[in-house]
Amino acid sequence: MPYTIGVDVGGTNIKLGLINGKGQIIARSRLSTQQYLKSRVELTRAIVECILGFITDRKLFKKDIQAIGFGFPGLIDPRSGVIKSLPNIPNWKNVSFKNDLQKKLKIPVFIDNDVNLITLAEWQLGAGKGCNNLLCITLGTGVGGGLIINNALYRGECFTAGEVGHMPLKDKTLERYVGNSHLFKRIRHISNNKYDRTQDMYRLAKEGNKKALEFWNETGTYIGMMLAQVANLLNLPLVVIGGGVSNNFRFLKKPIQAALRQYALDIPARHMKIVRAKLGDDAGILGAYILTQRGFH
Amino acid sequence: MPYTIGVDVGGTNIKLGLINGKGQIIARSRLSTQQYLKSRVELTRAIVECILGFITDRKLFKKDIQAIGFGFPGLIDPRSGVIKSLPNIPNWKNVSFKNDLQKKLKIPVFIDNDVNLITLAEWQLGAGKGCNNLLCITLGTGVGGGLIINNALYRGECFTAGEVGHMPLKDKTLERYVGNSHLFKRIRHISNNKYDRTQDMYRLAKEGNKKALEFWNETGTYIGMMLAQVANLLNLPLVVIGGGVSNNFRFLKKPIQAALRQYALDIPARHMKIVRAKLGDDAGILGAYILTQRGFH
Repeated sequence: MPYTIGVDVGGTNIKLGLINGKGQIIARSRLSTQQYLKSRVELTRAIVECILGFITDRKLFKKDIQAIGFGFPGLIDPRSGVIKSLPNIPNWKNVSFKNDLQKKLKIPVFIDNDVNLITLAEWQLGAGKGCNNLLCITLGTGVGGGLIINNALYRGECFTAGEVGHMPLKDKTLERYVGNSHLFKRIRHISNNKYDRTQDMYRLAKEGNKKALEFWNETGTYIGMMLAQVANLLNLPLVVIGGGVSNNFRFLKKPIQAALRQYALDIPARHMKIVRAKLGDDAGILGAYILTQRGFH
Repeated sequence: MPYTIGVDVGGTNIKLGLINGKGQIIARSRLSTQQYLKSRVELTRAIVECILGFITDRKLFKKDIQAIGFGFPGLIDPRSGVIKSLPNIPNWKNVSFKNDLQKKLKIPVFIDNDVNLITLAEWQLGAGKGCNNLLCITLGTGVGGGLIINNALYRGECFTAGEVGHMPLKDKTLERYVGNSHLFKRIRHISNNKYDRTQDMYRLAKEGNKKALEFWNETGTYIGMMLAQVANLLNLPLVVIGGGVSNNFRFLKKPIQAALRQYALDIPARHMKIVRAKLGDDAGILGAYILTQRGFH
């Protein structure tokens, strides 16, 4: 049975998954990125060694691996396999990663933006199963987005489509309101420096703390205002919300929906369902697997 | 050779075209809608008689007509063939037009929103030929829009996708800034009631009149601000601008592009081409023809 490897490259960790022919993750591995961040050559070598070790540790051979899919946090050209830029990892500008790795590994390689892969995974295997059109957003350090339209991932002309984090909202962008660093700052502010994690705000909100509930209301309202613009233009049936901050979905859902009703047209607002992502941390690896199966399309 | 009839239903006129197997319009007819606007039954009867007369006048028989496609100015469900509402023609709420006409004519009938049909036509035969993704907007009494994404018309969950005229812009919607009635009002105002047509502003702008140039600058800026939102979310390669007001494209293009650069992200702004529609008044009829060929998809 042929296997696939899905690789989810992040600023902190690289996660690997071995996927069988049924699309199930049957083994995992993890590599800390931190020590390799300064040198592109070092990071590439570490990735190659990690993959080769991952294969042999499972008593497999390179010929058992049908393809490897990679997700990167940045601007990726999946057609040419070039990494255009990675905002959080220096020295990765216009790198022919696909060709480079294929030469080194002699295994077919596919690459794409990490949020596009999460979107593919949630659409094919998760909260968006069976839906021909959807937006998937990820709330974390950055705020990302991916679009499925007419039953295919829609990347845009230069692969920037769905980048909702950079959409203008009032005088800033959405990311400046709900990206992690902004949330942490607000948490420190409203707790007089007692807390700085969203988990604390979750716990306090569960206990009925007014400031914490107001914090989630505000955060959800910003997300809803952005989704109102999306609803008006695209009249999508579904928005899937993932990323670390989506663990607080129970406190975000109502303010998101309220802002959507307030700022969008009636028909598209009423028909856009907001749901939480289903695949959690596996979404990136599973999306990389789906990319290898579907290719660029 | 099988023929198709394309019908473009407007608030003032109904335009008919006979299209041959090569997609060429080989005969035309026109019916004034005005006298039938009050009664849905009367208007339907007038349409049926007009079509039957159109066929026999050309010495054809019903069996020579493969299909008839209709474009309506309103919210249409092309899947069920139901007219949900026509804002400018009263008494057309939830009408099973497709089934009704098919029964009366014994010819397959297809219906869709008029701007969706213009979009289909510009994409397949006009300014968007060969482009897999585009937005087509129409500037006239209303401001409409249609989207081609991943090589197909994208209508949205309730068929409201691409309705850029209703997108919020500052404190109003785009249509409240650049719809005809607003433009006419502004023209009367800046000309001290001497003029009330866009043609006058075109002539004056050509003569270098500052107020007229400023009028087009303002109008283009509003359109560009809306397109900036579209660019950020969809990173489209092409926007096609049609409708009566697009006759002033030479004065609109620059301010549209300037506003796009100012309000959108750099990459999507630089890669979105703005062009004028090519098919003029024929777009609706040709789009109706394409609809009959492609069906709902």
